[in-house]
Amino acid sequence: MSAQSESAARFPTAVYAGRLRRAAELTAASGLDALLITPGPDLKYLVGSGAASFERLTCLVIPADPSATPAVVVPTLELAGLAGSAVADLGLPVHDWVDGVDPYGVVGSLLPKPGRTAVAEAMPALHVIPLTTALGAPPVLATGVLRELRMVKDEAEVEALRRAGAAIDRVHARMAEWLKPGRTEAQVADDIAAAIVEEGHTGAEFVIVGSGPHGADPHHEVSDRVIEAGDVVVIDIGGPVAPGYNSDSTRTYSIGEPSEEVAAKVAVLERAQRAAVEAVRPGVTAESVDAAARDVLAAEGLAEVFVHRTGHGIGLSVHEEPYIVAGNRIELAEGMAFSIEPGIYFRGVWGARIEDIVVVTADGCEAMNTRPHGLTVLPAS
Amino acid sequence: MSAQSESAARFPTAVYAGRLRRAAELTAASGLDALLITPGPDLKYLVGSGAASFERLTCLVIPADPSATPAVVVPTLELAGLAGSAVADLGLPVHDWVDGVDPYGVVGSLLPKPGRTAVAEAMPALHVIPLTTALGAPPVLATGVLRELRMVKDEAEVEALRRAGAAIDRVHARMAEWLKPGRTEAQVADDIAAAIVEEGHTGAEFVIVGSGPHGADPHHEVSDRVIEAGDVVVIDIGGPVAPGYNSDSTRTYSIGEPSEEVAAKVAVLERAQRAAVEAVRPGVTAESVDAAARDVLAAEGLAEVFVHRTGHGIGLSVHEEPYIVAGNRIELAEGMAFSIEPGIYFRGVWGARIEDIVVVTADGCEAMNTRPHGLTVLPAS
Repeated sequence: MSAQSESAARFPTAVYAGRLRRAAELTAASGLDALLITPGPDLKYLVGSGAASFERLTCLVIPADPSATPAVVVPTLELAGLAGSAVADLGLPVHDWVDGVDPYGVVGSLLPKPGRTAVAEAMPALHVIPLTTALGAPPVLATGVLRELRMVKDEAEVEALRRAGAAIDRVHARMAEWLKPGRTEAQVADDIAAAIVEEGHTGAEFVIVGSGPHGADPHHEVSDRVIEAGDVVVIDIGGPVAPGYNSDSTRTYSIGEPSEEVAAKVAVLERAQRAAVEAVRPGVTAESVDAAARDVLAAEGLAEVFVHRTGHGIGLSVHEEPYIVAGNRIELAEGMAFSIEPGIYFRGVWGARIEDIVVVTADGCEAMNTRPHGLTVLPAS
Repeated sequence: MSAQSESAARFPTAVYAGRLRRAAELTAASGLDALLITPGPDLKYLVGSGAASFERLTCLVIPADPSATPAVVVPTLELAGLAGSAVADLGLPVHDWVDGVDPYGVVGSLLPKPGRTAVAEAMPALHVIPLTTALGAPPVLATGVLRELRMVKDEAEVEALRRAGAAIDRVHARMAEWLKPGRTEAQVADDIAAAIVEEGHTGAEFVIVGSGPHGADPHHEVSDRVIEAGDVVVIDIGGPVAPGYNSDSTRTYSIGEPSEEVAAKVAVLERAQRAAVEAVRPGVTAESVDAAARDVLAAEGLAEVFVHRTGHGIGLSVHEEPYIVAGNRIELAEGMAFSIEPGIYFRGVWGARIEDIVVVTADGCEAMNTRPHGLTVLPAS
């Protein structure tokens, strides 16, 4: 990676200093001794490190005690992987270890014992279980501690989400270049993946091309099915832009003019999606936004075919809190970012989904995606 | 994925039936009630599923009780992801769940309580911690239970490793096409990645191009450094072939004739690598193979510059047991597969590494890689 792309790969050091300070405060407020963060989105959030080690422990230790300094435990071999992060600029102590040393003991030596700790969601059992032994007590999930911090995006994060949204909108705007009868879903997906990078993402994280009956499976990815005239096609795409914030947008296309039934049902879906967007403002619950979409579909007899939650939070992870789902009574707050993506699925026949990312504002929300929401009709020949 | 590639993506169903039976026996022998396996290499090993879900629990439950049937807990939305696996052909019960249901409770309902369980290494804390609560007892790692099973490869697995080794050897054989002065490491790496797929891998898992001083960092990946005449270049590459078994081979190249010092030191490294390969046979310890390489280097004053272990097991994971490292007294057995990859590193100047994958045979080992081991000299202009 060049020096230039390294510096673009994270925010200024002061941003991470503030996040570490808040994380320590929230850890203390939760009655815990420390947060233990292994590679994954939490590590990227807290120190801007994209380290991806698995079997050798890399761990950021954040003591709750405000007089103690966070420290990093890292394999000597992987020290270079910290170079792009804020660790050095923050002046964090680095405890490197070589094969033969017990890295869990090193973490334990930095903490009181038994240590009441919280661990990153992404930490594999490979590390969770020996840490439990070394600390003398089972950890809890850091989700609760970091929820408040990661869910509410600051202005730099929202700006990154805007850039991601604009980039994926440019890909949807070019769909007619690739989505044509006679091509397979896989061929279309390859072109879309290349365009996701061309339009400014650092990678194509996911590309769903669900044509005809495949559109009825919300988790279909791609296949060798050939696109035909008359197909309804669900295109759900996204990826990260520097420094790691994700886009995620779905639009539904029709190859040639749709049938009256398809047009009518997608019009209802469009109303459902808009109703959910309009329901967003600070103080309302996540589940009330889910209900807003669901109620519109139910009124038209489509409750049964909307088989998933309305949305998921987004940021450094494609899926994170808050989840927009029945039962989630969390109150939305300014700066929260999430998808609103109701869908309708007719097994073996066709499906449709409409998805925008929105960020909660003082009196409503700002959509990161602005492409037309209804069925986009593309040439059938 | 087409029907054809799906069938190539796993072994015959009987293979998985045998593995599940042995896994249950080993679970019982370990005094545990069940194995809990989330997506990752263990799930691929046991039922041929490449499912990759994260935040929603997918879990294979293997009871130790031989009269009980293994079962799969999976989000309803992700049922389609099981299609390519052996789950249906094995007749395993599938308990699917929708948002709002507690999937940890579903797993708990399949087991005695408190359940003494072992979990896959790759299971994220996100699932480990609520499972601990649902089961009423902290799990242990499944590594110990599955070690014996996964470490010793059967003939079909060895054949897959042979195909992987031959494919990566073909890539090394073409190195002169790409590794030339004036090109950046990143440009060379892009071409190598494409060739890894052209030569029969399903993806390029890793591509290390460490030129000149970058060769002195064992974990360097690629950079914008331009290759120059006189560079020594470490090329460490690999990826999976269907149904998921990995190649991993390193060769060291010289752009133009090497200096006498480089030639002499790489010749010692070549002897060290060969000594370790020749030390492999059933019954010897993993650490004795590490010592065989280290002793040759030490005799020439190069002990200090060999800064990592000699090797790692390989199969469905690029890194798995057995680790060829000081302190690992495990006895090698026929069918075990691992890398032998000593290296020498002169910080800021140059480095070299030579790596083959070997499989233990009745009286020694079979190398999966057969390219010349010494420094390969490529044109400097």
